[in-house]
Amino acid sequence: MRTRIVFSGSGGQGVITAAIVLAEAAVIHEGMNATQSQSYGAAARGGATRSDIIISDFDIDFPKVSQPNILICLTQNAYNTYGPIIRPGGTLITDKRFVETTRKVDARQIELPIYENVMDQIGKPIVFNVAVLGALLGIKPLIKDESVLKVIADRVPKDFLEMNTKAFQIGNEIGKAQIA
Amino acid sequence: MRTRIVFSGSGGQGVITAAIVLAEAAVIHEGMNATQSQSYGAAARGGATRSDIIISDFDIDFPKVSQPNILICLTQNAYNTYGPIIRPGGTLITDKRFVETTRKVDARQIELPIYENVMDQIGKPIVFNVAVLGALLGIKPLIKDESVLKVIADRVPKDFLEMNTKAFQIGNEIGKAQIA
Repeated sequence: MRTRIVFSGSGGQGVITAAIVLAEAAVIHEGMNATQSQSYGAAARGGATRSDIIISDFDIDFPKVSQPNILICLTQNAYNTYGPIIRPGGTLITDKRFVETTRKVDARQIELPIYENVMDQIGKPIVFNVAVLGALLGIKPLIKDESVLKVIADRVPKDFLEMNTKAFQIGNEIGKAQIA
Repeated sequence: MRTRIVFSGSGGQGVITAAIVLAEAAVIHEGMNATQSQSYGAAARGGATRSDIIISDFDIDFPKVSQPNILICLTQNAYNTYGPIIRPGGTLITDKRFVETTRKVDARQIELPIYENVMDQIGKPIVFNVAVLGALLGIKPLIKDESVLKVIADRVPKDFLEMNTKAFQIGNEIGKAQIA
């Protein structure tokens, strides 16, 4: 099993943190190997942040993803920049609030109202990234939800844990509804 | 110019955050290219966190560092695990509070009292990672101090900015004293 994921969006959306949480959960709580990397360059200066994650049962030699099985785009800029790299047959996840998909790709396209639900039910954009993680695992149960929630519990100040857990669950239900 | 850095320590020391701040500062404020990556595996489960950063004027194809020019070790475990990978002629930076160096390497070894100074002058271990960044740039002015301070100002809540700036300066002075 080897899953190549690219998480993309803008800096303030917590894309890198979400990627780190996912990679740590796979390693610490599920005994897998994982890499997580950022390449910063012209795209970063233009505002599109990208974080690559590889999760595998085996050793990972090269931490950069060229064709992701799973591509998450949280801004139009990220979608325009990274949309074309999706692996044929992969899964492209976008948030409806931020991305209008403009072309067909040879992948499953899933457009979700994650941001809208986070704002309606919690009202704090800061937990949007955690809700996106929940949605990802709802669609693709790469690792157990509990493993991610444990990493979140270790990272987040106590007073914010309930909000983060709720955000994860909001996203998770939206994701699961896609595969029902 | 291409600098390969490995930042190592334990998860709670903010090693990954420090690496991200350094990479972002190089890219956003100095127009360079940078990559920043984590490989998680057996070492991570044993408690040694490692983050690789490459900063370059040119494109960077491979984001993983095999032999760092600069190796920072903030725990004994990190030193024992990663000490041997230092590039001959490189710079090995450790914190005196956490690491006892046990062998000669073909590199400049710099042992600094960063943690002690942060605790004496600020009393909050949470800004230790920022002080280490300050020390690194004091020893090796890879990029301008202001570039890092700008990224910190963008990331840190307003109420904590002064403490972070102070931590950076404490580390920076300790680092600069090494090259005087």
